[in-house]
Amino acid sequence: MNLKDRDSLIQKWLVEIKEYIIEQKNTDLNIEEKTADNDLVTRMDKSIEEQLVKKIRETFPEDKIVGEEGYGDDVKDLTGTVWFIDPIDGTLNFVMQQENFAVMIAVYTEGVGQLGYIYDITHDKLYSSTKGDGVRCNGQQLEIPLDLNLSKGLVASSSALMCKDQYPAVRKIGAESLGVRMLGSAGLETIEVAKGNVSAYIASNLKPWDIAPGLLFMEELGMTGTQFDNQPIDLLQNNNIVFATKNAHKDIIDMLEK
Amino acid sequence: MNLKDRDSLIQKWLVEIKEYIIEQKNTDLNIEEKTADNDLVTRMDKSIEEQLVKKIRETFPEDKIVGEEGYGDDVKDLTGTVWFIDPIDGTLNFVMQQENFAVMIAVYTEGVGQLGYIYDITHDKLYSSTKGDGVRCNGQQLEIPLDLNLSKGLVASSSALMCKDQYPAVRKIGAESLGVRMLGSAGLETIEVAKGNVSAYIASNLKPWDIAPGLLFMEELGMTGTQFDNQPIDLLQNNNIVFATKNAHKDIIDMLEK
Repeated sequence: MNLKDRDSLIQKWLVEIKEYIIEQKNTDLNIEEKTADNDLVTRMDKSIEEQLVKKIRETFPEDKIVGEEGYGDDVKDLTGTVWFIDPIDGTLNFVMQQENFAVMIAVYTEGVGQLGYIYDITHDKLYSSTKGDGVRCNGQQLEIPLDLNLSKGLVASSSALMCKDQYPAVRKIGAESLGVRMLGSAGLETIEVAKGNVSAYIASNLKPWDIAPGLLFMEELGMTGTQFDNQPIDLLQNNNIVFATKNAHKDIIDMLEK
Repeated sequence: MNLKDRDSLIQKWLVEIKEYIIEQKNTDLNIEEKTADNDLVTRMDKSIEEQLVKKIRETFPEDKIVGEEGYGDDVKDLTGTVWFIDPIDGTLNFVMQQENFAVMIAVYTEGVGQLGYIYDITHDKLYSSTKGDGVRCNGQQLEIPLDLNLSKGLVASSSALMCKDQYPAVRKIGAESLGVRMLGSAGLETIEVAKGNVSAYIASNLKPWDIAPGLLFMEELGMTGTQFDNQPIDLLQNNNIVFATKNAHKDIIDMLEK
């Protein structure tokens, strides 16, 4: 199946997922803690991933799947075609607020991003990218954000980085910027970077499915995505990441390396 | 004019302001720095306040006005009827993002909140309160949020508190909660408390117009709004504030006093 047809099919599946979430979200979510009281999984996370994995296996039996909830494969390398699935990114928001979460999917071939999707369900805004075609919101092309320096823009980051001192440079980076925004969803924060609402997103310990669509978005928008040490992001493990305009990225890496 | 008629009139004015903002927001904003490069004012802030002050003076010539941009009065006490106006709360977001800002109005009589409005223009959601009638979103009554403890909910706060160390307890409070959210608009963060999306909003150095509608919302929702030292909020000066569920408020004040 060519990329255009794959894109149409994935967009159709995402609309089905949106409808399922809206239909189900006021029912019992059957919330369980994973590693901590703010790391939750619901019946919905599992069920969405299970349905999606089933569809992918039926349509693309050769492909490999990296999924948050364990319905995918134990993927050891990025050869062939690999899917990354985060059924609900921002599960804590989903549980506490019933809003401010995203569904994320990405497709990579031989380690290269081909398709990426971040769906802000609450506002019914689907951000998507097909390699070489930029990033779109509900089909409409996003403009390339201004290449602002750190001090001329806002940055998004995470509670863990702001409240704990594992990477104290991140608070200095926040103070150097015009201000910090925190939404509690890697997907929504990536969207903020893609729209130019913030010039950078800085986060620690993100999983491959948190990063995969956004990394393609950054490439398509002439922006940069790396690890804290400026090394390429590794989609087979957890990463500390900086998604940013080229100029803000340089400023941030300089401050992280000090 | 009775409260109900005042409420109808203010809601009509707010719709006119919304239409004006939508019509004007892609024009030249004529941005100026006030106290720092992240403390901005635009032509829009000034023009909205000027228009609103004119309408208030025509209709309610006896009333006093406390406005962010200086078109109001030099108010020394809260006797009589006092209006609080923030024409665009979250001006930095308005300038950088053209979204994530609010228009705020409150009316107090003899120091007691009578009417409060926070209008999330981007999403066309007007949160309003008439004393004794709870808080409504586009006319629909909000439910009273669960009275969660600090450790069972999210909290909203500000860049200044997270990135600088003037009140280090606030980062500990953030770490004690399920997570911190930062939106860059006191109005939008107050809405998050009112909806129960976060259990507390903690911010320093807020101006009377940043606080006045939210303080009424807290009273109407059985929640608590005080200064950091648990003293009542003083609407004649800047305040460090905690808006929170009763339980989270107690937990937060305990940690601030340590």
